[in-house]
Amino acid sequence: MPKPSVLKCVLCGKEFEPDRAPYTCDVCGLDGTLDVLYDYQSIKHSVSCSALNQNRERSMWRYRAVLPVVEEASIPDLNVGWTPFYRSGRLARTYGVKEVYVKDDGRNPTGSLKDRASAVGVAKALDLKAQGTGRPVVACASTGNAASSLAGFAAVAGLKSFIFVPEQAPAAKVTQLLVYGATVVLVKGDYADAFDLATAAIDKYGWYNRNCAINPYLVEGKKTCAMEIAEQSDWDVPDRVFISVGDGCCIGGLYKGFRDLKELGLIDRLPKIIGVQAEGAKPIYDAWRLKIEAQGAELVRPCGAHCAPRDPQAQRAESVRPNRKVVFSKAETLADSISVGSPRNWAKALRAVCDTSGDMVAVTDEEILSAIPELARGTGVFGEPAGAAAFAGFRKAASSGLLGKDERIAVVITGNGLKDIANAQKSVGKAVAVKPDLADLERHIEI
Amino acid sequence: MPKPSVLKCVLCGKEFEPDRAPYTCDVCGLDGTLDVLYDYQSIKHSVSCSALNQNRERSMWRYRAVLPVVEEASIPDLNVGWTPFYRSGRLARTYGVKEVYVKDDGRNPTGSLKDRASAVGVAKALDLKAQGTGRPVVACASTGNAASSLAGFAAVAGLKSFIFVPEQAPAAKVTQLLVYGATVVLVKGDYADAFDLATAAIDKYGWYNRNCAINPYLVEGKKTCAMEIAEQSDWDVPDRVFISVGDGCCIGGLYKGFRDLKELGLIDRLPKIIGVQAEGAKPIYDAWRLKIEAQGAELVRPCGAHCAPRDPQAQRAESVRPNRKVVFSKAETLADSISVGSPRNWAKALRAVCDTSGDMVAVTDEEILSAIPELARGTGVFGEPAGAAAFAGFRKAASSGLLGKDERIAVVITGNGLKDIANAQKSVGKAVAVKPDLADLERHIEI
Repeated sequence: MPKPSVLKCVLCGKEFEPDRAPYTCDVCGLDGTLDVLYDYQSIKHSVSCSALNQNRERSMWRYRAVLPVVEEASIPDLNVGWTPFYRSGRLARTYGVKEVYVKDDGRNPTGSLKDRASAVGVAKALDLKAQGTGRPVVACASTGNAASSLAGFAAVAGLKSFIFVPEQAPAAKVTQLLVYGATVVLVKGDYADAFDLATAAIDKYGWYNRNCAINPYLVEGKKTCAMEIAEQSDWDVPDRVFISVGDGCCIGGLYKGFRDLKELGLIDRLPKIIGVQAEGAKPIYDAWRLKIEAQGAELVRPCGAHCAPRDPQAQRAESVRPNRKVVFSKAETLADSISVGSPRNWAKALRAVCDTSGDMVAVTDEEILSAIPELARGTGVFGEPAGAAAFAGFRKAASSGLLGKDERIAVVITGNGLKDIANAQKSVGKAVAVKPDLADLERHIEI
Repeated sequence: MPKPSVLKCVLCGKEFEPDRAPYTCDVCGLDGTLDVLYDYQSIKHSVSCSALNQNRERSMWRYRAVLPVVEEASIPDLNVGWTPFYRSGRLARTYGVKEVYVKDDGRNPTGSLKDRASAVGVAKALDLKAQGTGRPVVACASTGNAASSLAGFAAVAGLKSFIFVPEQAPAAKVTQLLVYGATVVLVKGDYADAFDLATAAIDKYGWYNRNCAINPYLVEGKKTCAMEIAEQSDWDVPDRVFISVGDGCCIGGLYKGFRDLKELGLIDRLPKIIGVQAEGAKPIYDAWRLKIEAQGAELVRPCGAHCAPRDPQAQRAESVRPNRKVVFSKAETLADSISVGSPRNWAKALRAVCDTSGDMVAVTDEEILSAIPELARGTGVFGEPAGAAAFAGFRKAASSGLLGKDERIAVVITGNGLKDIANAQKSVGKAVAVKPDLADLERHIEI
């Protein structure tokens, strides 16, 4: 398996050798997340259309030639990726566009797109272990999908995992971590305290860091979602792809996947990437709006010449660095997986929107809730609130007349609805009670 | 797509033409569930090894040549089946057998093996609609996985669904039904009241009946789980397959799948099928034990000459008809999906065990609970209690010295752990709380 050729700061463009790279850029600090780049010319043959046609692997690892894992044996034995990509004629008719596709990433092993990142994170930890340069321990701070997926993949790979969560984390989520055998550290304090303690412990004990906004390899796992969308579209990518945005890693991964495919000559254009945030947690949306206003550009195609990708692998994001005083704040939304006030991967998120002439949409919690049953009834896909948020964003964009009737749309559902039954309950009415006889049934229920 | 050639009562062997068959045998009543049989010679070429090798469909519909659906257009667009089949060297070493495989059917669209049955049920309803002989309405009585999967498949197929549940059904399970848009009828009474009202309504309004123990086509969907196990084992089937047993339909489906494959010449022997029940709901186990005692046979290979399959498609089950006064009773187990005191498909369940020289195992709720984290940690598969029960049964059989060290074992996990977080919570300890500093971390947690 080929190794990445270089890691490059998404802000200043500084390059690092893969074996000697820090987690983030030593000039830009935590904001300077790194891109993992390859010698695309030399690996083109391994990921050509015909090579993939012959490839019988039905998981994200069918793209292993452009994944940063060194040892074949490092790949954890848990089937991740190659999730369903449904075409819904019903939704296309309802919203007046040519085609609507739904990518159901809740079908991953622990129920979310995060499994793609954890698979690579755990594989990298095993790589380091095989090279004798790492301890077989992985760690992260999270209360949600990243935590459960790390716990699951670490379990199957036989790695010890430490997961730091704030003391008030929901018992149900902590349960999933404990079931997988993670050492769960309940930190007396809030999420920031948990994050800081995790970071200090990772530094001190030399554990492998599975924070997706810090460890550059994890976004590489997430990019496989875009690669599947492209392949499942027969390499004729949709015009727009909607995805919800929290820390910025999923949308960053989506962009990276499409970019890599363009480098490899498998697609000839990037879809417009539309990020969707909750009204109560929309720092990236706000940063993007500020950017548009500063440019005086229109809503749908705001980038103009300034943001047009010339050297999209570097430096572009610098021009959209948000004004933190204005943008970053507390988060409040029922969609817990995207309830992020201070996104750590804002640079990759903004680049994804900017370089694809995309857009950001904000939706209310009510709009997210009503999206859950509509999506489930239209497509059979039951998404958690953060997953259904992408559909809510599509619906809002369509209803605002922003989408052309010839457009082909994809919506990424990032997590499984079974993860949050309590909020799903708020999204539907109550069932009707009847006596056990047909007459009472007919009195209360429309047959 | 070929049609079934005949439907045959599993008790008396009476045959029915598919187009004119009742749901169950008119001689044996509800106990006389029907087998769906095909002209295997004429369809052998469509499901040969080489044909399947060429087949790019990665769902249960790759076996459509031996599925009872008539119209290609009736197949619902929701990706079901072809679930992961993991080999676990760790579990094989721990339990002293040659190989252990885990079939993760919790990865189906609504989270359980029942999706295989609902897919066929909804397709059959669409077949009837296409033929103008049925109303596009499906119905069942259930509080669990069958209900949610029917609701999901009906939604995506655009069929109206009525689901009858007892008034006290858990709100979380009712929520999933409402999200998918089912009309949920809360029946004032217990499960038997809900079942009776559903049956009366189905009769009166001509709805399509999705009760798996009544509608013979639904077990045909479930059989695809066995077909996948065989194909994923390269047609060299495991020596034993463990599966949990409630109403008896899943184990009946497993048997039918292996039988069909043998008829088709794809496998040359049937694995021993081992049914696992909870101590508090073990009527099939009890019936099986009574049968063994009557025969004076030993535990592991109890069938002897009497049960050896000669004409396994009929009449064998008659000889194991349980003494209901002794066997059927109230059920009490935390594994809700197999909490069945009066199993309606007992005949197919007992036949599965009898004709494969299999066995029944009973496990306590404590054994089920402790199986959940062990399975998750060993394989990455998080099962609901009824799913993990199969693993608990394997573990018990292995620890009792009943399994040979050269045996290859498969364990079917029938439902996703996210469906029942409350019980998973009982299966693990509590997380440790620490102050947000490294010293306190080291005081409380073993690094």
